[in-house]
Amino acid sequence: MNGAQALLQTLADAGLEVCFTNPGTSEMHFIAALDSEPRMRAVLTLFEGVATGAADGYARMADKPAATLLHLGCGLGNGLANLHNARKGKVPVLNIVGDHALYHAQYDAQLQSDIETVARNVSPGFVRTCGSTAQLSQDAVDAVRAAQGLPCQVATLILPADVSWGAGGQPCAMPPRCTAPVVDDAVVQNIVKAIQDGGKTALLLGGQALREPSLAAASQIAAQAGVKLLAEAFPTRLTRGAGLPSVERIAYLAEMAGVQLADIKHLILVDAKAPVSFFAYPGKPSYLVPDSCTLHNLATPEQDATASLAKLVVALGASQTHPELQAPGRPARPRGKLTAPKVCKAVGYLLPENAILIDEAITSGLMLGAMTAGCPRHDLITLTGGAIGQGLPNAVGAAVACPGRPVVALIGDGTAMYTIQALWSMARENLHVVSIIFNNASYSVLNVELERVGAGNGSEKARAQLDLDGPRLNFARLAQGMGVHAVRTDSAEDFTKALEYALATPGPHLIEALVPETLSGMKRRMLPWLLRSLPSLPQPMAQALKRKIAP
Amino acid sequence: MNGAQALLQTLADAGLEVCFTNPGTSEMHFIAALDSEPRMRAVLTLFEGVATGAADGYARMADKPAATLLHLGCGLGNGLANLHNARKGKVPVLNIVGDHALYHAQYDAQLQSDIETVARNVSPGFVRTCGSTAQLSQDAVDAVRAAQGLPCQVATLILPADVSWGAGGQPCAMPPRCTAPVVDDAVVQNIVKAIQDGGKTALLLGGQALREPSLAAASQIAAQAGVKLLAEAFPTRLTRGAGLPSVERIAYLAEMAGVQLADIKHLILVDAKAPVSFFAYPGKPSYLVPDSCTLHNLATPEQDATASLAKLVVALGASQTHPELQAPGRPARPRGKLTAPKVCKAVGYLLPENAILIDEAITSGLMLGAMTAGCPRHDLITLTGGAIGQGLPNAVGAAVACPGRPVVALIGDGTAMYTIQALWSMARENLHVVSIIFNNASYSVLNVELERVGAGNGSEKARAQLDLDGPRLNFARLAQGMGVHAVRTDSAEDFTKALEYALATPGPHLIEALVPETLSGMKRRMLPWLLRSLPSLPQPMAQALKRKIAP
Repeated sequence: MNGAQALLQTLADAGLEVCFTNPGTSEMHFIAALDSEPRMRAVLTLFEGVATGAADGYARMADKPAATLLHLGCGLGNGLANLHNARKGKVPVLNIVGDHALYHAQYDAQLQSDIETVARNVSPGFVRTCGSTAQLSQDAVDAVRAAQGLPCQVATLILPADVSWGAGGQPCAMPPRCTAPVVDDAVVQNIVKAIQDGGKTALLLGGQALREPSLAAASQIAAQAGVKLLAEAFPTRLTRGAGLPSVERIAYLAEMAGVQLADIKHLILVDAKAPVSFFAYPGKPSYLVPDSCTLHNLATPEQDATASLAKLVVALGASQTHPELQAPGRPARPRGKLTAPKVCKAVGYLLPENAILIDEAITSGLMLGAMTAGCPRHDLITLTGGAIGQGLPNAVGAAVACPGRPVVALIGDGTAMYTIQALWSMARENLHVVSIIFNNASYSVLNVELERVGAGNGSEKARAQLDLDGPRLNFARLAQGMGVHAVRTDSAEDFTKALEYALATPGPHLIEALVPETLSGMKRRMLPWLLRSLPSLPQPMAQALKRKIAP
Repeated sequence: MNGAQALLQTLADAGLEVCFTNPGTSEMHFIAALDSEPRMRAVLTLFEGVATGAADGYARMADKPAATLLHLGCGLGNGLANLHNARKGKVPVLNIVGDHALYHAQYDAQLQSDIETVARNVSPGFVRTCGSTAQLSQDAVDAVRAAQGLPCQVATLILPADVSWGAGGQPCAMPPRCTAPVVDDAVVQNIVKAIQDGGKTALLLGGQALREPSLAAASQIAAQAGVKLLAEAFPTRLTRGAGLPSVERIAYLAEMAGVQLADIKHLILVDAKAPVSFFAYPGKPSYLVPDSCTLHNLATPEQDATASLAKLVVALGASQTHPELQAPGRPARPRGKLTAPKVCKAVGYLLPENAILIDEAITSGLMLGAMTAGCPRHDLITLTGGAIGQGLPNAVGAAVACPGRPVVALIGDGTAMYTIQALWSMARENLHVVSIIFNNASYSVLNVELERVGAGNGSEKARAQLDLDGPRLNFARLAQGMGVHAVRTDSAEDFTKALEYALATPGPHLIEALVPETLSGMKRRMLPWLLRSLPSLPQPMAQALKRKIAP
């Protein structure tokens, strides 16, 4: 058995079932060894950013890592952005990065580069270059353990070609996973005191705390003690919909997040970090928690959020409390000229039960949360690390992880172009993914940001760097070029009909939505949408917000 | 004047004229500052790999760096592969990587990551994070100097947002470039002795030595002293065609390179490194220079290759020697069912004078060298670092650098998909680029490599990882989706007509060539093509080669 064969057997024994690949010569023995391991499915991608984003989406839904197979430092570089998103979302991913044979490195051949220095950016906790075929399987076990550690992370195993082809490979068994510790009683008692102290209190849920068991416990706490439920701005995976507790996400715009957090006296973190501004803006704070607010940590990412929340439920005597749950409800079928909010409305009108909803629509998706709140139960995946180009690859991975569940991915036009090659893998694997592309011919969010950072409105030359017109992209053609059924729509009627068809017809679909920019001319038009996108905001808060960001 | 404005003025004063951008929020002040510097052209790309590959192609043709504008560590990651190619080709590139404001880093916001560790992979010689607005312009001068150093390199300047927006920016002037040293007389004398020693001698030309002045000197040496002229396998830029000296490139396949180098007693390196195998293969040597061959360094990459060659010309008394130059000649117009060699034939039949030819056709381009050898003078750009996805972005940059020269880029299908977004920038800038995509529905070279590394033929599961069929890509549709005129052809007649039209009609064009795999079934069919692709190979060498790689 050569190294590659032993490696694949080790990974399959450890429960890994899928490898998202973009191989080159140095990975040929790994590819050949696929024949010897029927438990490992290999999904080919045309670009490494698709492979890594697919591994991320897969792990978010399967709750276990997939492997990636990448070609030396450049392949890892191409996959880096989506690994960054996985790192920020604490998602387990095992990178296998092929390298030159150990003895070949000294010759500085064309593809030779320092792979480890690249890997450190996304795998600070585990980067290892295998030194021998005999050691390879143990290295793989260590890497998988690191990926599934407390918390989960991206682990990178660099696999020299001669380690892969060398004889004497020995598969190696995984030790059982370690269990996450639960919060101390003393911490729970302190938090109980804070909740009972009388001021406004909120639970900020992140990571694992946005799955159903944690949400159920959190909602009992909310109902029993009047605690507000907040979710981090960009959840790795949020289970939501009718019959589930509803949580208010921290807004992307620091100005709005400031309003959400303004009068909270105790902020209790559950697998979440204290909210900070996505970017820095001149003269505006980066740290969004008010000075008057005390932070508490009910569960760090290293701890068991669900068990820790359960402890707090018991300590508050809330075990029998009936929580408030989201009532079912859908928006009406949209009509007329297509706009981004109408796309969101159509999604809310049609989203099937158990769908996986991927939101990388940036400005065009502002209404998505409100429009789908009462839809049947579904999972929402968002852009955890801010590196755009995550959504389409995530959709590939999520669909591979959950073959019975439809995937609906809402993607901005600028965003879609980073990893558009994902469409081909959807066609090749015949995945039931509906990709909805908002074509507003603009990096719309940057028009807003240009003003927010105080860089002025920009003249034509600056503005030209933010527009995607001239030529306007045709995403239906792009999809057809990769074998994906696609339509281009500019009316709500056509869009809704296309979405109905796509949801009812297995296999991949792309629906291009020609829409005007949602956010152009921020000061004139932005505020109403923003306010409507947070329907739970009470009137005084809305007024405060208006004063803060209106002209 | 803020930091960004001072930076742009400093860069323009230093002679930089173009910035290839893919900006985000942290770069908004740089974008706004474009309005204050009319000498700087900003070319928007939809993906960072296009920006970096365009900067590479630009510098190869303009002989000075362009800037890139990238968005934090993930943007740099997306651009890494083409920066790797630039690094390996010793091409000057100035990366400006926007970062969070210095004070914002502590909050570990979504896009926060260790940018420097990524940059070290491609910019080992210059990575710097600007610490203050006052220092920024000096940092920029240092970075440009590093990029244009001896030899040229990729330099990375990390630009925190608050350094960019801070007041008190002061432009800074560039000191004059240092001149490259020339080879010592003693070294020249040693090389003269080696040449006159009687054994077979070859000059291996690389880097700057593949431009006309160096080639002219080298060909005088060749004619005077019977020295063979070799070029490195993947030239950064090779000037060639009728009336220029012809040089034989070292073959990609180590087996063939071994034949080329077999009986050479003295190998004289001129801005080139001793040939090594592209990849390692079990049981085959990585270092391709025979033990019996002595290496000499006439010029290192840090030295002036042209002046060093001129010294050798004088020392050999070859100043008046008439070198052998390539005779003009074109292949006939091809006919019949389209194949990859017929595409190369059509290019040879039509290539205009002063064209820029970009070869990233991998297996499909095997005949390109032979078919274009006698074409009018042109420049050839090749894949210096082995990270595929270079060609289309290079074409963008080369066309921006040389608006009067047609660019013809020959690209493999697998390769094209890494940076297909380049087509949009061609349309947006209305560049006269003809992109020829060989669609053989396969990572054809990997089918060869699978056998060469001794991993067997692979069963269906392994082979499936190397094929691009199911669905077959439609590149004409992809191009149309990005606003580029495109046709799909499967006959030599249609292809040639399309190429004629594209060359005569300014603006971007894509011609998709549906061709069978050139190299499938290596042992059965590969050898004849390989041999025909090196027509200069003498018969005994061809026989030796046949014995070496035939079954």
